[in-house]
Amino acid sequence: MAEALAEETEREEEDYRLSGELVEEILDAVEQEDADRLSELLEPLHAADIADLIEQVSGHERREILRLWGRQIDGEILTEIDEGIREEVLASLPPEVLADAVRELDSDDVVDLIEDLEEPQQEAILGALDETDRAAVEKSLGYPEYSAGRLMQREVVTAPEHWTVGETIDFLRKAKWLPDQFYHVTLVDPGHHPVGNVTLGRILSAPRASKLIEICEEEFRKISAYQDEGDVAYAFNQYHLISAPVVDEDDRLVGVITIDDAMSVLDEEHEEDILRLAGVGDESAISDTVLETVRQRLPWLFVNLLTAILASAVISIFEGTIQQLVALAVLMPIVASMGGNAGTQTLTVAVRALATRDLTDSNVWRVVRREAIVGLLNGLAFAVVMGAVAAFWFSGAQLGIVIGLAMVINLVVAALSGILIPLALEKLGADPALASGTFVTTMTDVVGFFAFLGLASVVLL
Amino acid sequence: MAEALAEETEREEEDYRLSGELVEEILDAVEQEDADRLSELLEPLHAADIADLIEQVSGHERREILRLWGRQIDGEILTEIDEGIREEVLASLPPEVLADAVRELDSDDVVDLIEDLEEPQQEAILGALDETDRAAVEKSLGYPEYSAGRLMQREVVTAPEHWTVGETIDFLRKAKWLPDQFYHVTLVDPGHHPVGNVTLGRILSAPRASKLIEICEEEFRKISAYQDEGDVAYAFNQYHLISAPVVDEDDRLVGVITIDDAMSVLDEEHEEDILRLAGVGDESAISDTVLETVRQRLPWLFVNLLTAILASAVISIFEGTIQQLVALAVLMPIVASMGGNAGTQTLTVAVRALATRDLTDSNVWRVVRREAIVGLLNGLAFAVVMGAVAAFWFSGAQLGIVIGLAMVINLVVAALSGILIPLALEKLGADPALASGTFVTTMTDVVGFFAFLGLASVVLL
Repeated sequence: MAEALAEETEREEEDYRLSGELVEEILDAVEQEDADRLSELLEPLHAADIADLIEQVSGHERREILRLWGRQIDGEILTEIDEGIREEVLASLPPEVLADAVRELDSDDVVDLIEDLEEPQQEAILGALDETDRAAVEKSLGYPEYSAGRLMQREVVTAPEHWTVGETIDFLRKAKWLPDQFYHVTLVDPGHHPVGNVTLGRILSAPRASKLIEICEEEFRKISAYQDEGDVAYAFNQYHLISAPVVDEDDRLVGVITIDDAMSVLDEEHEEDILRLAGVGDESAISDTVLETVRQRLPWLFVNLLTAILASAVISIFEGTIQQLVALAVLMPIVASMGGNAGTQTLTVAVRALATRDLTDSNVWRVVRREAIVGLLNGLAFAVVMGAVAAFWFSGAQLGIVIGLAMVINLVVAALSGILIPLALEKLGADPALASGTFVTTMTDVVGFFAFLGLASVVLL
Repeated sequence: MAEALAEETEREEEDYRLSGELVEEILDAVEQEDADRLSELLEPLHAADIADLIEQVSGHERREILRLWGRQIDGEILTEIDEGIREEVLASLPPEVLADAVRELDSDDVVDLIEDLEEPQQEAILGALDETDRAAVEKSLGYPEYSAGRLMQREVVTAPEHWTVGETIDFLRKAKWLPDQFYHVTLVDPGHHPVGNVTLGRILSAPRASKLIEICEEEFRKISAYQDEGDVAYAFNQYHLISAPVVDEDDRLVGVITIDDAMSVLDEEHEEDILRLAGVGDESAISDTVLETVRQRLPWLFVNLLTAILASAVISIFEGTIQQLVALAVLMPIVASMGGNAGTQTLTVAVRALATRDLTDSNVWRVVRREAIVGLLNGLAFAVVMGAVAAFWFSGAQLGIVIGLAMVINLVVAALSGILIPLALEKLGADPALASGTFVTTMTDVVGFFAFLGLASVVLL
């Protein structure tokens, strides 16, 4: 029974991954140029899974799939395809297929699809839209990149504030067009300023005579069209919003953002943080070619080379000391490595706490103090351990004392730079995740080598 | 105008952070023991913001806030409070306050609140619930930790599959109790198996005579109660789900998961990944004390110490070589550092791609090959640069060749270990983020030192 259960779970868990066999079958059909079989295999898949498949296969296979099956691609698949290869996919489609595909999309999806395209490709897609849709998309594109204005959908279900439940239901039943998904009816005043949100659940469960204004949600948050999309995602997660109205400079309703878009942004922001912390261009994707990958990673490795040379320059000051006592060369990477690791720990916690707004002006000094004390305590602990190891290894108590002292110094410096560097970047308006890893390890390498070799040259020689 | 706009944006962006002044005022009120002023200041805040405040202040301030204002705490605030201090907060509340607070919560929130508590505290809270609620919570607790069964809410709005829109609206209007937020009416067959979802928007806009079964959403995904919550979050993000029915082993409806809970899980999973990659216990929180923080970080630093000592042991093999040519000691950290960085780049991309299901059986070898070639190309690039630098610095062409060769070797090893180690962990059923950073840098340190010093001892001496 327990085993049967485990199997069941196993099977269910496989569901969200394209099975290897299915991908095999699809690629077989592609190789045999069997367009019918290919359609048959792709048809039951969700748009997001088809997009993943197109991203994951090789460049050659991708071109073949698009050639054999591209006419069946729809707008939803296009919006799911990663930016890295979107241009290539769009360029491969016959104009009329592309036009049909974009015409079925909501305005936010069209904006998302075209905002990173080159002018001529953008023009081609905009040209396929009818006048009203095109105007809506162009208006959204007028808002800054990564703003709520770009993220929002312009189609909002609204009602005048004096309406009753009955009037609203009658209106909805007669409406020629409604969004596929909507969660609120937004009440607007005569100046088109949003004044409240009513959930569909309440409209459905209230008597027809109820006034909408009386069954509004207590919590009502508007979002400025100029707000950064990262802040919007944070607000949705923090306040458990499902959809929120977006307003312009004059507080007039211009659109709505729904939680599924906010969730995608949250996911992208995380990706950016984790990749930036590792010194990888934040647009990295599985479909990137070798050259794209080299181009993303080489600049950061180059910065690291410069900082590594700086650390070496510090070592070279003490060449004479090392020559006299080669044990120093053996031990010095330990001090640097421990500092680098401790610094990265603090840095990561700080970057995350800044992203979740847990590190604020009110508690920053307490957290800095905590990190410094933690650095000191960890430093003392490893000073004892490593001091003893070094003293036994090279039969010299003084060497043990030197490495112990250097360890304490470097772990305190690691803690302080791990928290102060991201804080400084944030204050300067930069992303605290960006490049701070390199700054921190530069500090801990330089200080680690300098403290250890410097102390050694004073104490031991 | 543009300036006014910028100001507006600035002001809006501040909104999601507790302002420093407000926190000051709150702490002033606490210091003056002015409970009325404190209530007045906290009252307008969102539960999530109050929870953040309680997390961000010092331990002493927290106890004072709870003493002065704890009787006004509600269930929503309790569920928002970080696990790290939840026990402390719950223990500080009078039993009747706690009982009132939990009675207003949905079953998923009660489960979330108590699942990590000690037995007696759990018992106390369960005891406050009425018989039905208690049974529901206990049934959820019967599912494994981090499963859909724990995440779901047991209160589902269902309708028999033969109902019409009119019957459904009449039923909803008469319902004594409905969830605060629900997005679908789930159709069930007589065996209580879910057969479809109807969005509230469609129910509102369809004629009363329409059959629910005819206006079902096309896409219908059920979730097994035993599914891992991380997979559930992935599915919500991948398929843009808003709510999904949860079923037991017999495919019977047992609950529903909504997107706001999935979004929280996605956020937590990211936190876990980023913290684990940095070697920080994944429960790290801003409210942790110095000792809790030391306890989280020390074990990983200890592992790092062992690997650093291993790298030192490699160096010590070549003590004689270094003694003859101290330039080697100056240059060797560069090779190790470049390897460590390149390995971390690859590792991070791999961990992220595994999390997003972009790295699959179908493309794994192509990605491994890509990484190896990228490592080789980066290695060649930096071999030339660093070879030239070393040759000039220490006036020795051979030294330049040695460091160049070592660089190529180490960057290829870095690329391979950066991708193969997380893949191996994943295959073994472990979290690919966990400890893989340490494995990778151990590889690059050991190989870096060995290749550089070994080649030097052969070529130069």
